[in-house]
Amino acid sequence: MNFYSPTFLIDELQCKQNIFNMLKKAQTGNCIFRPHFKTHQSAAIGGWFKACGIQKITVSSVNMAKYFAAHGWEDILIAFPFNIHEIMSLNHLASQVKIQLTVSSAITASFLAKNIKHEIGVYIKTDAGYHRTGLLPEQSNEIDEILQLCKSSALLKFKGFLAHFGDTYHVIGQKEVNTIYRRSIDQLKTLKSKYHSQFPDLLISIGDTPSCSLVEDISEADEIRPGNFVFYDLMQEQIGSCKFKEIAAIVACPVVAKHTDRNELVIYGGAVHLSKEYIRDREGKGIFGKIVELNKNGWSTPLENTYVDRISQEHGIVACSNETFNRFKIGDFIGVVPVHSCLSANLFKTYTSTSGEIISNIHNNS
Amino acid sequence: MNFYSPTFLIDELQCKQNIFNMLKKAQTGNCIFRPHFKTHQSAAIGGWFKACGIQKITVSSVNMAKYFAAHGWEDILIAFPFNIHEIMSLNHLASQVKIQLTVSSAITASFLAKNIKHEIGVYIKTDAGYHRTGLLPEQSNEIDEILQLCKSSALLKFKGFLAHFGDTYHVIGQKEVNTIYRRSIDQLKTLKSKYHSQFPDLLISIGDTPSCSLVEDISEADEIRPGNFVFYDLMQEQIGSCKFKEIAAIVACPVVAKHTDRNELVIYGGAVHLSKEYIRDREGKGIFGKIVELNKNGWSTPLENTYVDRISQEHGIVACSNETFNRFKIGDFIGVVPVHSCLSANLFKTYTSTSGEIISNIHNNS
Repeated sequence: MNFYSPTFLIDELQCKQNIFNMLKKAQTGNCIFRPHFKTHQSAAIGGWFKACGIQKITVSSVNMAKYFAAHGWEDILIAFPFNIHEIMSLNHLASQVKIQLTVSSAITASFLAKNIKHEIGVYIKTDAGYHRTGLLPEQSNEIDEILQLCKSSALLKFKGFLAHFGDTYHVIGQKEVNTIYRRSIDQLKTLKSKYHSQFPDLLISIGDTPSCSLVEDISEADEIRPGNFVFYDLMQEQIGSCKFKEIAAIVACPVVAKHTDRNELVIYGGAVHLSKEYIRDREGKGIFGKIVELNKNGWSTPLENTYVDRISQEHGIVACSNETFNRFKIGDFIGVVPVHSCLSANLFKTYTSTSGEIISNIHNNS
Repeated sequence: MNFYSPTFLIDELQCKQNIFNMLKKAQTGNCIFRPHFKTHQSAAIGGWFKACGIQKITVSSVNMAKYFAAHGWEDILIAFPFNIHEIMSLNHLASQVKIQLTVSSAITASFLAKNIKHEIGVYIKTDAGYHRTGLLPEQSNEIDEILQLCKSSALLKFKGFLAHFGDTYHVIGQKEVNTIYRRSIDQLKTLKSKYHSQFPDLLISIGDTPSCSLVEDISEADEIRPGNFVFYDLMQEQIGSCKFKEIAAIVACPVVAKHTDRNELVIYGGAVHLSKEYIRDREGKGIFGKIVELNKNGWSTPLENTYVDRISQEHGIVACSNETFNRFKIGDFIGVVPVHSCLSANLFKTYTSTSGEIISNIHNNS
């Protein structure tokens, strides 16, 4: 492979394997699979999902919904509390494709009831314990108010309760993920039981990659919306959601300097390529990426005692063992396994597959 | 002002004032002012510098050099250890405009000597104590080797010693910044004395915004290359490089949810708008931005006890006092003062001025 500058490199086969595995998981659990496309933001990668028969997708902004609608997707959930300022774009979009929204408040639902011009699906964003956003299950009055608004409106169709069990990103191991999943899904199931007679088709929709990867039987959810699993990353490997070999994307970076006095390589690859997300290693030290060697099929397992120790806007400083320090010379490309692939991918205008194909994304589209 | 979604908002007058102040500082110190354009990455904002008579600029990548060359800049320093894989682009660029490079090693200098096709200026990247990259002053053999390569080459013109006193970003207060500046500039001055007889025109070039802002007399430097000062940000305010009112950019974000049980607002504004950079407040707590109220001329002073407490890809969770929680409703736009304006600006395809003008940048150019 010929690279010139920092390159977001995708192992297409592994990526497709990850898609297939998650699809199988959804099918086994009899769940609707509505993958989140905010991780890759790419029509081409979207095509790999379409080739598996997937027709429903999730995005995180009206703009991303527009992009995927323009690329042939016809059933799109915007899984972010609706921003009322985007009503004009939303109405335009809803005139073209099937749009589902999430609302976090009766105020927003009421605004929609007054201003929407085409039929849309409405999910109530539910806080099942993560406390980022969403209505708590005990906020019955506000939930009832939203449901009433949906009933009175010819255009707002209540779809169900949607939650993100984001606290699974802050634990390690299947047991801990299962505990959070259990506590959270039970809250959604209680809501489902309560409203089932009024809305027999209502769905409970969940989204976190750790639960979707680690919970063996996800049949209690009606719909799953994971996104990160398409690439996975160091954070997911640390949680236990994936094995290292399932990580399907790295950032290839050239070595631009070597510092013998401190066994450090300097790479062209910084916060504008990797983001400033970090994980803590076993000693509690923050690291911004692990290092792999590139080979003709992709990349190696992570190199021992070699990691991105600190980053600034474009520089990455790689701490090495004696062995890895001596292995690389100025001009070599090395691979950085990103801590958080969604944030890293978002910083690139194109990706490159290990077979050398250029893969465009939303940032290359305007 | 009419916003629809998260908007990088620039106070054009304050921005121009910041440019003017730094220019005056350079002029008083009899320094060449070669501002770093990686902070704004915008031809339009570049025009504000040009209007002050500035003709020399700094960028951090070959790609950024291409962009500014295409917008009429004719003397560009790429202040990043040269990446040998970009030699073709570099040769093309150097055929059009005056290019200055930095090298961190004799290996790279030797590569350039063999492959360069047009005259370029060469700065030796010098490590004056920050230990990110650059040659240590005591690495005389390698410095001499690079200088010899420049002397033997008809195209490599040695310009001087360039350093970034990046440790100033990790201290607070003028006294601490002065201490780092003194220790670091002395190292560069020693190098200058040593090589002055061979290269009577050699420059010492420094770049950090804290030194350039806080050191009263910068006449010991021959050239200054600050970038961040054009916008400043919370990190610079914490260091003491600027007063709050000198911060010239914020991110305007809509409130999309309110959580009464915990006095938290949810805004549409997350890591893909603000980056994951944080500062620690007096209690040691990490915060991702302070909050201001928007008004017709720009924005207010920061609201007491109100800050971005945590962020995910698109969500920002704003912790509020009772008073500020009650002040804002769903649909209001609030301002987030970014921790690190360079990283936040890099996440936007356009900026908006407080007078409503759309300002394009490099991401809107491809």
